[in-house]
Amino acid sequence: MKKFVIKGDICYSETSDKLYTAKDSYAVCEDGICAGVYQKLPERYEAFPCYDYTGHLVIPGLTDLHVHAPQYPFRGLGMDLELIDWLNTHTFVEEAKYAELSYAEKAYEIFTEDLRNSATARACIFGTIHTKATLLLMEKLEESGIIAYAGRVNMDRNSPENLCEKDAVTAARDTEEWILECGRFQNVRPMLTPRFIPVCSDALMEELSRLQKKYHLPLQSHLSENLGEIEWVKELCPDAAFYGAAYDKYGLFGNDCPTIMAHCVHSSEDEIRMMKEQNVFVAHCPESNTNLSSGIAPVRKYLELGVHAGLGSDIAAGSGLSIFKAMAMAVQCSKLRWRLTDQSLVPLRIEEAFYLGTKGGGAFFGKAGSFEKGYEFDAIVLDESSLRHPQELDMKERLERFIYLADDRCIAAKFVGGVRLFEKNQRHVF
Amino acid sequence: MKKFVIKGDICYSETSDKLYTAKDSYAVCEDGICAGVYQKLPERYEAFPCYDYTGHLVIPGLTDLHVHAPQYPFRGLGMDLELIDWLNTHTFVEEAKYAELSYAEKAYEIFTEDLRNSATARACIFGTIHTKATLLLMEKLEESGIIAYAGRVNMDRNSPENLCEKDAVTAARDTEEWILECGRFQNVRPMLTPRFIPVCSDALMEELSRLQKKYHLPLQSHLSENLGEIEWVKELCPDAAFYGAAYDKYGLFGNDCPTIMAHCVHSSEDEIRMMKEQNVFVAHCPESNTNLSSGIAPVRKYLELGVHAGLGSDIAAGSGLSIFKAMAMAVQCSKLRWRLTDQSLVPLRIEEAFYLGTKGGGAFFGKAGSFEKGYEFDAIVLDESSLRHPQELDMKERLERFIYLADDRCIAAKFVGGVRLFEKNQRHVF
Repeated sequence: MKKFVIKGDICYSETSDKLYTAKDSYAVCEDGICAGVYQKLPERYEAFPCYDYTGHLVIPGLTDLHVHAPQYPFRGLGMDLELIDWLNTHTFVEEAKYAELSYAEKAYEIFTEDLRNSATARACIFGTIHTKATLLLMEKLEESGIIAYAGRVNMDRNSPENLCEKDAVTAARDTEEWILECGRFQNVRPMLTPRFIPVCSDALMEELSRLQKKYHLPLQSHLSENLGEIEWVKELCPDAAFYGAAYDKYGLFGNDCPTIMAHCVHSSEDEIRMMKEQNVFVAHCPESNTNLSSGIAPVRKYLELGVHAGLGSDIAAGSGLSIFKAMAMAVQCSKLRWRLTDQSLVPLRIEEAFYLGTKGGGAFFGKAGSFEKGYEFDAIVLDESSLRHPQELDMKERLERFIYLADDRCIAAKFVGGVRLFEKNQRHVF
Repeated sequence: MKKFVIKGDICYSETSDKLYTAKDSYAVCEDGICAGVYQKLPERYEAFPCYDYTGHLVIPGLTDLHVHAPQYPFRGLGMDLELIDWLNTHTFVEEAKYAELSYAEKAYEIFTEDLRNSATARACIFGTIHTKATLLLMEKLEESGIIAYAGRVNMDRNSPENLCEKDAVTAARDTEEWILECGRFQNVRPMLTPRFIPVCSDALMEELSRLQKKYHLPLQSHLSENLGEIEWVKELCPDAAFYGAAYDKYGLFGNDCPTIMAHCVHSSEDEIRMMKEQNVFVAHCPESNTNLSSGIAPVRKYLELGVHAGLGSDIAAGSGLSIFKAMAMAVQCSKLRWRLTDQSLVPLRIEEAFYLGTKGGGAFFGKAGSFEKGYEFDAIVLDESSLRHPQELDMKERLERFIYLADDRCIAAKFVGGVRLFEKNQRHVF
C-alpha cells in the first residue's frame, strides 16, 4: 500500500538552518513518493487511507551514514584506546569471528532487529572481508525493510592474518563475485568499502578503481580521523599531498561515484576543498570521535562551505544506533570545540543537527530525509508520552527535547520508502 | 523489612580505580546496613529472606550530587546560551512559576516519580526561593523513598524581581522558618542553598553563615563554572583572591559543615588547594558543562589530589537524570579535554567514573555507595536483557556496556537504606 496519508504534527528541514513545522497537518504518500504536506487535505487525496497520528510529531526517517554492523556486539565496550590500538585490540578480534556464519547469524540478527526498531530509515553499512557473512547481513537488511548500502570490506595489508585478504587480485575477484551476488536485493545495494588507506595496498586500490568504473558503485571509507593515523598515511603514501589525495590518486574520492568519508576530524584546507569540489559526503560521527579521543570535526565549516554532510553512529566506536543521540552529540561537541579550541566556528544549533541527521545525510540516497514534494517517503512517528512535562511546548521545543531525551521506546511507527515497517499501538486507518 | 539477602552478580568500587566483582554472590542487609558480600552465605544469615536476582548485575545505588528539581520541565530545551544568559532567558522564567503551588505540584510530581524510577538512591537537590513549593518537593521526595538533601534557594541581588528575596534579613527569617518545618521529614534533610555568589549579597551570606552555625547544616552552591561568571565574581568581590574565597570569607566553604560545590571547571590551583584542605565536595556535571559551553573540569586532577568528588545530573543544563549517562560523559569529556587542551591529565577510565557515581558522591551521605561492611544498604538490580549480544561477557564488561547503553527501563529493582522501593517483575523471595 503505497498511497496513503499521515496526519500529525509534521516537522522537517527546509535548509540546514530552517525548520518547517505544521501542526495537525497531512503528509501525502503517492507510490512511495511524498506528494507534499498540507494543512487542509486536498480533495484529490481524500480517498487515500489515512493514518491518524494527531498529537504526535511526525518527522522524516533518519539516515546513518556510517555504521559497522559486525562491531555491534561490542558497542559500549573497550573504548579505552585510540584508533589504531583500538582496531588491533578490540575490533579486528571481533570482526575475525564473522568467518563463522553461525556467529554472523546471531550477531547480525540482533543488529538488524535493533536497527529496524530505531528511527533510522536509511544507512550506509560496513560488513567484514567475509563475502558470505556480508551477504547474510544484506539478506537480513532486505527483510527488515531498511534501505541501505552495504559493503564487503577490503583490506590486504597491515592487518591480522585472519582478517587480511590474500592479495589485491584475489580481493578484487572475491569482491566482484560479491557484487554480482547483490543483484538479488531490492532495497540493499552494494558499495565499495576499502577500509582505509593504511590497510589497503596500492594494487588493491587500483583493482577497486577498476571495479568502480565497471559497475559504477558508490564508495565508503575513513578519512583524517586520528592524528597518528594521518601520520601513518603520510609515511605510506609519501606522494599524496594529504590523506584524501591518497584516495583521489585512484579516482576513489567522489566525482561521478557517490562517496562517503567518515570522520574528517583533522582535514586540511586542501582536503576540504577537494571534498567540496568532488562532492564527497562527510559522515560526522561525534560520539565515535569522542570515545576514541580523536577530536572534534569542524562541522560548522562543512555547513558554511556547502560540503555534503550527514551523521553516523559509527558503531562500535559510537555506543548506540540512535541518530537522535548523534544529533545531540553533534551540538554538544561543537560547543566544546568552540570553547576549547576555536572560537571562529560557532556551535551548531539544534535545527542544524536535525538537518544533518535527515536531509543532509539523506541526500546521499538522492531525495530522502524530507517531506518536500518529490522526496522518497520515509516517516517516523514519535511518541512523547513518556517524556512528561507540566507546561505547554511548541513544535520546535518538542522536537528539541525529543532529540535529547528519547530512546527507541519512543518510536511509535516507522515508514520507509512508502512502506510501513511497524506500528507500536495499532491505530485506526480511515 | 530491613533484614534480607540479595543474590546476584555483585559489583562495587573498592577505590577509585579498583572494581570489586563477585558472580553468584550474596549481599546481606541487616537493619539497613550492609553486613558484607559473600560467595557462600554464612549460616547466620540463612534464615534471612533472600531476593534471588541470579544472572543480574547488582550495584550500589547511585548518588546525584547536583540537581535542580524545578528545572526538570525544560530538560533538553533551550541550551543555546552560556550560563548567565541561559539563567536569565530560560531558568529564571521557569523557576518563577513555582510561586504557584499548583504548578509546583504538577512539576514536582513528574520530577519525583522519574527520580524514583531512576538508579539514583541519594541526591542533593536545589528547589527555588519558594518555601511552600520547596516543602512540597520534600514531601514528595519523602514519599518516594529516595534519601536526599534539599535546599530552599537563596538569592537577593542581580535576579529578576519575581525571583529575588526582599532583603537579607527577610531571606534569613524565611529560610529559618523553612528549616524548622523540615523537622517532620525522615529521609529528606534541609541544606543551605545560596544559589551562587553573583546573586547573593554580602549581608545574605552573613545571615546564612549565622544560620549554618546555629543549625549545623550542610551547604550546596556553584563554583567556577563559566569564564564570564568568574570575571563577574571578581568584580563583585574584589577582596576575594579567587571565587571559592568569596564563600570562605563567610565560613561557607567546607570544614565542619559538609559542602558541595557544583562544576569547578575553571578552579585555580589555590581554589583547589582550599577545596582539598576544607573537605569541599566537587559535583562534576559533564553534560551540563558541555551543554552550556562551560568547558571540561579537570576531574583526573581532583582524583589524584584526593579532593572529594562525585557526579551531578545538573538538570536542566544536563538533559536527563541518569547518573549512568553522567558516568559515560565524564569519561567522554575527559578524553576530549586530553585531546584538545591538556595531555598531562589522562582520560578517566570506566572504573573511575563508576566510583564517582557511587562511592565518590555517596561519601557525602557518610557511608553510602558501596557494599562494603558497614555501608548503608542501597542496591540497584540491573536488567540487561534488552541489550542483547552474541558473545560471552565478563562482569566488568557487562557493567561498562550497561553504563553506555542502559536507560531506566533496565532498572529491575531498587533498594534505598535497606527499603525496597520497587521491583519490576515480581520475584520469589525464599
